[in-house]
Amino acid sequence: MLGALGAWRALRRCASLPRAVRLRVREALGARQPADAVRVQGWVRSVRSHKEVLFLHINDGSSLESLQVVADPSLEKRDLTFGSAVEVQGKLVKSPHKMQNMELQAETIHVVGPCDIWSFPLKAKERHPLEYVRQFPHLRCRSNTLGALLRIRNEATAGIHSFFQDNGYVHIHTPIITSNDCEGAGDLFQIEASREAKESAEKTHFFNVPAFLTVSGQLHLEVMAGAFTHVFTFGPTFRAENSQSRRHLAEFYMVEAELSFTESLHDIMQVMEDLFKTVTSTVLSKCPRDVELFHKYIAPAQKGRLEQILKHKFMIISYSEAVEILKQAPQTFTFKPEWGCDLQTEHEKYLVKHCGEIPVFVINYPYDLKPFYMRDNEDGPQHTVAAVDLLVPGVGELCGGSLREERLPFLESRLQRLGLTDAYQWYLDLRKFGSVPHGGFGMGFERYLQYVLGVDNIKDVIPFPRFSHSCLL
Amino acid sequence: MLGALGAWRALRRCASLPRAVRLRVREALGARQPADAVRVQGWVRSVRSHKEVLFLHINDGSSLESLQVVADPSLEKRDLTFGSAVEVQGKLVKSPHKMQNMELQAETIHVVGPCDIWSFPLKAKERHPLEYVRQFPHLRCRSNTLGALLRIRNEATAGIHSFFQDNGYVHIHTPIITSNDCEGAGDLFQIEASREAKESAEKTHFFNVPAFLTVSGQLHLEVMAGAFTHVFTFGPTFRAENSQSRRHLAEFYMVEAELSFTESLHDIMQVMEDLFKTVTSTVLSKCPRDVELFHKYIAPAQKGRLEQILKHKFMIISYSEAVEILKQAPQTFTFKPEWGCDLQTEHEKYLVKHCGEIPVFVINYPYDLKPFYMRDNEDGPQHTVAAVDLLVPGVGELCGGSLREERLPFLESRLQRLGLTDAYQWYLDLRKFGSVPHGGFGMGFERYLQYVLGVDNIKDVIPFPRFSHSCLL
Repeated sequence: MLGALGAWRALRRCASLPRAVRLRVREALGARQPADAVRVQGWVRSVRSHKEVLFLHINDGSSLESLQVVADPSLEKRDLTFGSAVEVQGKLVKSPHKMQNMELQAETIHVVGPCDIWSFPLKAKERHPLEYVRQFPHLRCRSNTLGALLRIRNEATAGIHSFFQDNGYVHIHTPIITSNDCEGAGDLFQIEASREAKESAEKTHFFNVPAFLTVSGQLHLEVMAGAFTHVFTFGPTFRAENSQSRRHLAEFYMVEAELSFTESLHDIMQVMEDLFKTVTSTVLSKCPRDVELFHKYIAPAQKGRLEQILKHKFMIISYSEAVEILKQAPQTFTFKPEWGCDLQTEHEKYLVKHCGEIPVFVINYPYDLKPFYMRDNEDGPQHTVAAVDLLVPGVGELCGGSLREERLPFLESRLQRLGLTDAYQWYLDLRKFGSVPHGGFGMGFERYLQYVLGVDNIKDVIPFPRFSHSCLL
Repeated sequence: MLGALGAWRALRRCASLPRAVRLRVREALGARQPADAVRVQGWVRSVRSHKEVLFLHINDGSSLESLQVVADPSLEKRDLTFGSAVEVQGKLVKSPHKMQNMELQAETIHVVGPCDIWSFPLKAKERHPLEYVRQFPHLRCRSNTLGALLRIRNEATAGIHSFFQDNGYVHIHTPIITSNDCEGAGDLFQIEASREAKESAEKTHFFNVPAFLTVSGQLHLEVMAGAFTHVFTFGPTFRAENSQSRRHLAEFYMVEAELSFTESLHDIMQVMEDLFKTVTSTVLSKCPRDVELFHKYIAPAQKGRLEQILKHKFMIISYSEAVEILKQAPQTFTFKPEWGCDLQTEHEKYLVKHCGEIPVFVINYPYDLKPFYMRDNEDGPQHTVAAVDLLVPGVGELCGGSLREERLPFLESRLQRLGLTDAYQWYLDLRKFGSVPHGGFGMGFERYLQYVLGVDNIKDVIPFPRFSHSCLL
């Protein structure tokens, strides 16, 4: 192997060899013109050897499709196998097959890195189930499904950034390590310097105070919304919860946005809906083949449903209406629906089904169910706050948001009742210096992918399936 | 305040009031045409009351410049002060002053949120030093300097994403929580679920194994480079080190990239240089006024230096040459320069000065100084690896990278000597299945900003200055 590589490099330096243009597989497949001196690098996805001709398929991760290489059988060699890394140089020509645009007529084939096919867990021409490849977190990205997923994840990420940049939002990196543990959004991870942690939990903390991994950047974003009016963050978020569920991760990505000078909860819902639709349209148009793979093999019929959803306005119902719908439901629930109680997964599922398996905004939740920062609707006797959850089929809650309580007296009395005045002095402070009506929301990125692609287990939409392989945890 | 807001909302709902177009300050300032019914929302930066006319300056964070509002003195009211939040409706007209393009002739001014100016720590017309505003992490974003910084940070972030997307890199979210502690890149933070952490350090870990905050996504990116050839990540990274230095943070952002099918270390340096130049050019062209503020008040002369740097190729010297330069230096160092020893900050400073205060790549470091994954140059007797550091004036090391050891036998024997074979079995595995020459680098994002803007203390380039204010930690 070393010898081959050395020879390859030496050959490269040899002036007599024309320097071919390096093309990615995607570029080669999409080329409009034939080209004489082209080189393509990637991994072999298939080798078919005939008497007259040798066919290879080369993939470099730039697209789901591989590039067909046509070569003289004399170019075949022992280590030119499935999984090996190659550099092929030759002519890019129009393909006679209607399934592909271009193909590469090889002049030279160099095996850059051979593949030990007997121990390689991925096999040629096999469609490995997601559960199978999850066992190989360091190799599964070379399967079609995970390749497609990661390209989609990349486009969705870029689409989210573009959506906010195009709409004048300022991107803020909210802190990951925070002392803020009062939000009650979920169980926390605590952190210490590893040496200290080993000694004693009683010792002085690294940051002088207990420090945790963020559960939400919302409060920090609110600070920034008081200067920039439109801000967003898109980063990792953590919950020390049981990670064995198909809908929960201990580490996941969250998109969060805050807007100042809002007029009603509708302003927030508009951004949520626009974000969902814009990013989904981007993904569908930027990697149609990758999405198709999911909609063909993983979640048939999801494509048609998505296209319908993109055409229509999301539905809006109030929490009170939702409870009425649930009370009148012909089915019995494990948790009896009652005004003032949290909506359970079974309730959310029913509501989404009742509305026609489309995304549904549920608004105006009971005051006593929600955190201190949500804006009091001052309605009664069914006293609510201006909160919103977006429920989607199959996944449940995709986004959650609210107007924030911008009025100092309301916030002051609520924090006092909760005994949190000291901890949130800075938050009260914000209401003294040009406080404006504002609100925001968060969307779980993995749940978004899970919903759009119809993936059952949330572990299959992250780059590395944690907790299954200690070295790659 | 509640009354005023209610009245404002009621007024809005009143059908007789024409619905004015909402413009951001930046849009209003850049408008090409006058417009009749415009409304602008933001915070008052100055109030000047004359007998005949009232002048306001309104800022909404969309630009460093504020919009001048010209109003009849009858519109003045008690709570229309510096720091208050307002909505102004009126006519956008050409400004008679040559320093500004447009101004707003107010028809109505609503104070949306008053400001308690006596306790507001920012004062009108004062240029507060960075050290002063750092005491108010929840309010300092409303100062000109921090506003400018966060807009620049936003553009630099977007620029980094665009650079990689435009060059066909796939964005990978590498894990934040990892069990990987073998790299030796720095002191680690350990994490546990907060309840467990409180009980006993001896208890079973939340993830069954000790878990840490990532110090680098490199190894995970290498996995992905074996499927996509070009990958990058841009996320938070952690070091449990003393955070009192002006160059170090416990939590900071790092851009990391990995490339497959590299031919030499020059491939890596080319991407580092292109990234630096592209992002810097983007920032200079997208927010010239914001950058100017730093180059005028914080780091005079930095602008000219940057422009020079963007025009010329970065210099490349080998580690061995660097040691020779240091040995021949007319000055004495605290640490005597010697082949085989790490370059100290004093050495890096001298080298950068010696080369003319420009960015300098130092390549090919001693084998024994560097981590196991760096590619053996197989040279001797001064045995080196294909590593590179990019040194820049004032900051020192801005980027670090290397070719990675793709050859199984080399890696195997090195890991064996270090007793790490078991922990890195998966890493060895990658070298069995189509392994190709590859390499990558990381760039500290905050150091990048520190260098480009000439900011002395790294705490002043992050959104929230941690460790100074426990609630916003």
